[in-house]
Amino acid sequence: MTLEGKLLIGQQAISGNQTEIRAIDPATGETLTPAYLGGGKPEVERACALAEEAFASYRESSLDERAAFLETIASEIEAIGDELITRGMAETGLPRARLEGERGRTCGQLRLFASVVRAGEWLDVRLDPALPERQPLPRVDLRQRHIALGPVAVFGASNFPLAFSVAGGDTASSLAAGCPVVVKGHSAHPGTSELVGRAIQRAVAKCGLPEGVFSLLFGSGNDIGQALVADPRIQAVGFTGSRKGGQALMATAQARPQPIPVYAEMSSINPVFLLPEALKHRVDDIAESFVASLTMGAGQFCTNPGLLIGIQGPELEAFIDAAGTAVNESAAQTMLTPGIHAAYEDGIGALASHPKVRQIARGQAGDGPHQCQAALFATRGADFRADDALQAEVFGASALVVECADFDEMQRIADHLEGQLTMTLQMDSGDLDTARTLLPTLERKAGRVLANGWPTGVEVCHAMVHGGPYPATSDSHTTSVGSAAIQRFLRPVCYQNLPAGLLPEALKDGNPLGVSRLVDGKREK
Amino acid sequence: MTLEGKLLIGQQAISGNQTEIRAIDPATGETLTPAYLGGGKPEVERACALAEEAFASYRESSLDERAAFLETIASEIEAIGDELITRGMAETGLPRARLEGERGRTCGQLRLFASVVRAGEWLDVRLDPALPERQPLPRVDLRQRHIALGPVAVFGASNFPLAFSVAGGDTASSLAAGCPVVVKGHSAHPGTSELVGRAIQRAVAKCGLPEGVFSLLFGSGNDIGQALVADPRIQAVGFTGSRKGGQALMATAQARPQPIPVYAEMSSINPVFLLPEALKHRVDDIAESFVASLTMGAGQFCTNPGLLIGIQGPELEAFIDAAGTAVNESAAQTMLTPGIHAAYEDGIGALASHPKVRQIARGQAGDGPHQCQAALFATRGADFRADDALQAEVFGASALVVECADFDEMQRIADHLEGQLTMTLQMDSGDLDTARTLLPTLERKAGRVLANGWPTGVEVCHAMVHGGPYPATSDSHTTSVGSAAIQRFLRPVCYQNLPAGLLPEALKDGNPLGVSRLVDGKREK
Repeated sequence: MTLEGKLLIGQQAISGNQTEIRAIDPATGETLTPAYLGGGKPEVERACALAEEAFASYRESSLDERAAFLETIASEIEAIGDELITRGMAETGLPRARLEGERGRTCGQLRLFASVVRAGEWLDVRLDPALPERQPLPRVDLRQRHIALGPVAVFGASNFPLAFSVAGGDTASSLAAGCPVVVKGHSAHPGTSELVGRAIQRAVAKCGLPEGVFSLLFGSGNDIGQALVADPRIQAVGFTGSRKGGQALMATAQARPQPIPVYAEMSSINPVFLLPEALKHRVDDIAESFVASLTMGAGQFCTNPGLLIGIQGPELEAFIDAAGTAVNESAAQTMLTPGIHAAYEDGIGALASHPKVRQIARGQAGDGPHQCQAALFATRGADFRADDALQAEVFGASALVVECADFDEMQRIADHLEGQLTMTLQMDSGDLDTARTLLPTLERKAGRVLANGWPTGVEVCHAMVHGGPYPATSDSHTTSVGSAAIQRFLRPVCYQNLPAGLLPEALKDGNPLGVSRLVDGKREK
Repeated sequence: MTLEGKLLIGQQAISGNQTEIRAIDPATGETLTPAYLGGGKPEVERACALAEEAFASYRESSLDERAAFLETIASEIEAIGDELITRGMAETGLPRARLEGERGRTCGQLRLFASVVRAGEWLDVRLDPALPERQPLPRVDLRQRHIALGPVAVFGASNFPLAFSVAGGDTASSLAAGCPVVVKGHSAHPGTSELVGRAIQRAVAKCGLPEGVFSLLFGSGNDIGQALVADPRIQAVGFTGSRKGGQALMATAQARPQPIPVYAEMSSINPVFLLPEALKHRVDDIAESFVASLTMGAGQFCTNPGLLIGIQGPELEAFIDAAGTAVNESAAQTMLTPGIHAAYEDGIGALASHPKVRQIARGQAGDGPHQCQAALFATRGADFRADDALQAEVFGASALVVECADFDEMQRIADHLEGQLTMTLQMDSGDLDTARTLLPTLERKAGRVLANGWPTGVEVCHAMVHGGPYPATSDSHTTSVGSAAIQRFLRPVCYQNLPAGLLPEALKDGNPLGVSRLVDGKREK
């Protein structure tokens, strides 16, 4: 397909007239064609008007129609073929295997949401039948279901050009909930975005849905994103990116005449607790698997393990030695964008020059222009607690080891940490009591708690929580990965005493949709 | 019991040293004893410290322990006996029957939440078992449950001195979720609050729970409430009251270093659509039942029907005549506080002097000092749409009839309305098509949609939604009445690959709690 450098608004492809966006191949520094002229207020206005128009029928599309639409999007993405992979590689510097895997994940995610839509758990149907004889007052018939919120604004993330971008998790879960989506594509991968956006456009047409179900906007700077979040028709926002970016969207959403929810996944350093027995028995294994997780994808994951907390002594020294050796030997990898690489170098520089931090290791230098050399640092527990700047995320393959004087200090550090996406225990059976002592703190601070694994590699399933307390996300009640992500875009409505002819399908007598229901508070068999 | 005029902090009763609060009997204007000296920052600090301390064990109390605690609170409230009713009557002007009914509702609500805790649906247990053979990558074991957020600040409401105050719905659902509660009692009924607060204190002691599970603060003005919401240990807020009050708490919560959710139920005029066939066949019934709902409890309900929308013509005229006659004949009723009565009179005055509004009827004058005379007004559809001030809630027995030129105008008015707690259809079978046309708008604007009833009288059950889009509430995803209210104070946590010895009870193999579970996305039979 010839990329046209256009915004996709409903079924149209139109040219913007604002500042030009051009992707850069980070492996070469070369500017790629075509140029994408950014959109402005008129394009936001048109996309939101179409989305609002589409919402009326799309939100009540049948479960099968909506599921088939999600499956058609997946097929259309697969049908793009290798062009999607090669364009993605050029725009992100990510290797072929990673992008092929990510495409599989993206399409799998769309199909998972198709199955979620059909299963209907998300409707959370509750029935409290009438009790006309109840004393002192009768009870009327009350039924509850969940309905879609309205059009959703989705911001593509830089680090998952497929799985958290135009047809990524936020889009899939919004569409599954019955919400039209207006995507603001990430400026780092506009070509990949256009390819995927056109696949969704084709799926909309093939499924006979109203065109406003999906639009894709581009624009440099923050103006178009802020205009989108401020548009009165937008009812929720999905975002994955920096803390600063997420906070700016939260402020805009709160300042609207009608505030709306922002689901921002912002930052996390994913602390890992290295418990004594585990280090005693498996130090080399732990060091090796840690560095593999740290350096995977140049560390450009929300769940990259950026903080390790251990108790000082020969075992922790051995871990630092082994991990340091592995980091020293690690090859340089191209980062997603020149900007991300520059920010990474700034972060590394700040740690390297911090008076209380010592550099343990630095990966191999590369020969490309924007390559990440992994880095490992160490500091003392008391110094870590004394400077909150040491909790800042350095996006990329950088980690800090915190050496605690004893377990009490490890516990105090756990108490001192900000909210996180994940917290991990490296533990052996002899560490069980220690782990049990830490677990309540870990639960309170993180959306996911792991034992003996590494937080990268987020499974897309029903039990997943890719979320966590602020500032990891803007709303700890939610997840942005996994089937529960659909709940972000739904709200409950109660129907009291409605005649049968008015009741939504999900609430009708006889359960025509065959969904799980809570009747008088009990799960129906 | 002798009321002591004290703050209840954990198991202690202490005197404040800030501005004095005294309840006023609105039926006589008489000031009641004792005086309650308000608390300040030290009392907020102490209550929050105790709540945080209690949280560690209370959040993991067994389902039976927690349920028994809620039941003990109910028994202790009942054990207060008639003193609770007589003090409540003196502080609120509400009649005996209403307060006896409200006590029943409050205790029933606590017992409902006990059954909700035991049933365990709120844990939302999800299991995705390990798939070690999966290609290309194995899946690790993933399990999800919901955990309590942390200490909750609850603001007592003026209009439900029992059911939405110290041991009301917000407190019951917080405690059910495993969250300690710090209540800021409403200044209008401190004696009623102290009686109920002492009942909770006794229940805490009887159940052997940590004392910080419950505290009760008093304080005039906004300082103590703002300090409570700003306290870093508070993790969520429950509020029922004015829009201005709710918005102030939302702003404070958002300005914290860690923003927290505010569940504010703020205002609603609960529009009722009078469809043509219903008016044709049942105009007198509708008018009579409307005025009964309007004037019940002097109209001091969040769900009071304050707006009626009909199509002009002889049937609507007949409705206005009949409702006007009933309003003219309605007796005056004492309002909750002098301030509420003054605000009601201001609201009535603004409508009465509005150039586009005509007064239809005014209830009988009373002989007490703070009595509500019901009021009925009418305006034209175009005039209503031209002035948003006509959508403002007048708290009390006041309603406005909007006369539409035709159904198109009725639909435009539905589109123009703000978010509401409820919307109601008065309809006959011949109105089914009209109702079907309006329903999508009603669903989008309200938390509860009724047919042929009146919105007052909110059932406490599983399907209830006492919520709705902003500005009816601050968070349309939630309800403050009914069992789903517990979800406000919970968040999901995923456990990855945890050894059996670390898994929470709810997630253990063999389902020892016997709760409903989603296994691989399917509801387990």
